[in-house]
Amino acid sequence: MQQALEQAALAAALGEVPVGAVLRMPDERCFLAHNAPISHHDPSAHAEVRVIREASQKIKNYRLGGGILYVTLEPCLMCAGLMVHARIDTLVYAADDRKTGAVKSLYRVLHDERLNHQVTVIDGILADASSTMIKNFFRRRRR
Amino acid sequence: MQQALEQAALAAALGEVPVGAVLRMPDERCFLAHNAPISHHDPSAHAEVRVIREASQKIKNYRLGGGILYVTLEPCLMCAGLMVHARIDTLVYAADDRKTGAVKSLYRVLHDERLNHQVTVIDGILADASSTMIKNFFRRRRR
Repeated sequence: MQQALEQAALAAALGEVPVGAVLRMPDERCFLAHNAPISHHDPSAHAEVRVIREASQKIKNYRLGGGILYVTLEPCLMCAGLMVHARIDTLVYAADDRKTGAVKSLYRVLHDERLNHQVTVIDGILADASSTMIKNFFRRRRR
Repeated sequence: MQQALEQAALAAALGEVPVGAVLRMPDERCFLAHNAPISHHDPSAHAEVRVIREASQKIKNYRLGGGILYVTLEPCLMCAGLMVHARIDTLVYAADDRKTGAVKSLYRVLHDERLNHQVTVIDGILADASSTMIKNFFRRRRR
C-alpha cells in the first residue's frame, strides 16, 4: 500500500486526483499505476483500470486469477466491475469513498453473488494517509 | 444501431462475444468499436469502453457531454460506470442482459441520483437482431 500511495502522490503532482494502485500477481510480478483521466484524455484511466490493463497486456491474458490489487481509495462502479471481469482474487484498499465507492459505500459489487466472480476485500489499510492526501489535494485546488 | 450490429458481427468473426457500439457526438462525429477483451488481452476492452476511450483521445477531452451511445447489449457495471464518468448524454441499447446488465436488469446505475450524472436510456431498439446474434454465437461455440 505504501507503493500505491507513492503512485497517488505522482497523480497529485500531475493535477490528477491522487489515487494509486499496485497489482501483485501470484508469480510476484508487480504492476503500478496512478489515476490519469485528465492528462490521458481517457475517462477510463483510473489507477485500477490502468494497472489491470497493463498487467493483462504484459501477461497476455485478459484474466488475472490470483491477483491482489492494492488501491488507495475505495473503487468506483467502473473499477469494481472490471475487477470482476478480470477475476481479481483480493482487493486491499485504504480510504472509503462515500460519494462513489462501489465496494462498501454506495454498492457492494464485489460481494454480489449474482455475478460470476466475487472478490475478497480488506479495507482501511493506511486509510488516514490516503484520505489526508486527497483532502489536501482538493484544498489546494480550491485555492 | 444497424452500424453497432455490424460491429457486433465483426466481434463474432474474431471469436469475441458479439457486442458493438457507436458513439455519436453533437458535432456529428461518429466512433465505432466492437467487443475485444480476448484478442486485445484486456478485460476492459468492451465495445463501450473502446469507443469512449477512442472518442476521448481523438477529441482530447475526458468528458463527452452530449454524446449518444448506441450499444447492441445492455451495458455491464464497468461500462455503465464509465458512461457516468464520461458524461454520456443518452444510451440507446438493443437487447437486455439479464445476467450482468447494470442499466435495468441487475442494477439501475444510469438512473442513480446519488451519482453526479445521470444518463437518459432508450432500450429495445433492434433487440431481436442482437439477441439472435448472441444466441447463435454461443450455440456455435458449444459445438
